[in-house]
Amino acid sequence: MASPEIETLTQSLSRLPGFGPRSARRAVLHLLKKRETALDPLLAALTAVSQRLATCSTCGNVDTSDPCAICADPRRDTRQLCVVEEVADLWALERSRLFPGRFHVLGGKLSALDGVRPEDLTIDSLVARIAQGGVDEVVLAMNATLEGQTTAHYIAERIETYPVRVTQLAHGLPVGGELDYLDEGTLAQALRARRPVA
Amino acid sequence: MASPEIETLTQSLSRLPGFGPRSARRAVLHLLKKRETALDPLLAALTAVSQRLATCSTCGNVDTSDPCAICADPRRDTRQLCVVEEVADLWALERSRLFPGRFHVLGGKLSALDGVRPEDLTIDSLVARIAQGGVDEVVLAMNATLEGQTTAHYIAERIETYPVRVTQLAHGLPVGGELDYLDEGTLAQALRARRPVA
Repeated sequence: MASPEIETLTQSLSRLPGFGPRSARRAVLHLLKKRETALDPLLAALTAVSQRLATCSTCGNVDTSDPCAICADPRRDTRQLCVVEEVADLWALERSRLFPGRFHVLGGKLSALDGVRPEDLTIDSLVARIAQGGVDEVVLAMNATLEGQTTAHYIAERIETYPVRVTQLAHGLPVGGELDYLDEGTLAQALRARRPVA
Repeated sequence: MASPEIETLTQSLSRLPGFGPRSARRAVLHLLKKRETALDPLLAALTAVSQRLATCSTCGNVDTSDPCAICADPRRDTRQLCVVEEVADLWALERSRLFPGRFHVLGGKLSALDGVRPEDLTIDSLVARIAQGGVDEVVLAMNATLEGQTTAHYIAERIETYPVRVTQLAHGLPVGGELDYLDEGTLAQALRARRPVA
């Protein structure tokens, strides 16, 4: 069989999401055969990230600097604050390039089942950020799941005494969604939130 | 957007076989969030392999030592030599744990279309290994493709003057294969090579 070092690399790769033992083996073979174009760049990139990896102490984003690139960017609108469950959600919103403000990453969602309580999330630091002032609008961008919506309601209650506008993402038909294939919950939301044709 | 270091890592990962931009992003997020259990072990494994990566000067296997673990293993039968196209094929045969001998990796297959000639493969060094003596059997374990079989025929001709038994892998039904779903080529091979019931 392959040497212990190669076996260890295969195992490390196979634990990544989307990878299994078979695809990890294929990737390792690719890395071994393309040393200059695949292995060395990946090693350099991983080293660079590992050396500078930091969690933003303001918003909870994961980046290579603290404060993160978003919090440090003077062009971002400090009056808008978007609250998300996870860093992945922040990245998804950033890819849309539509939100000009800053973020706050909760680090999860309230869950009675998994025993996640408000003090396990960064809700206190969110309230502290809002209490400092300067924020006009808080966008609750939780997932459209039961737990996500529970978390949104909890946060809305916690910050209702502050002079901020609290909004949440619209629910309705996804782009390209066909009525015939959508669940009743989404259809009901879309119908309830119907708007006049512009 | 994410920092340049994280972007670079995402791009490096997305070039691995089986990975696209989306799954690379998921993997990077996983690495960033699980620093101790995912990022650091992967970095260590990659560093270890990168530092010791070597191509075996005897058989062409990729390993962390030269000669590779197989060529250096005194328990391997030096009288049997299995010729394969690629390192991936060597690994596949090793996983079956059935071949007790050593290997020879050609580094590809003859191909008029891709302009791969005999001198582009390690055929000369294969002939030299056989000419040295000590080898009783050469197993031609090429892929069951037109180019693989052309390569096997070419090698068989090149070594026919040496006192070695030249064999090739059996062709026929794969385990679990259903006749109804098999191509005619495989069926024809299986019928031609039919054996008495033991």
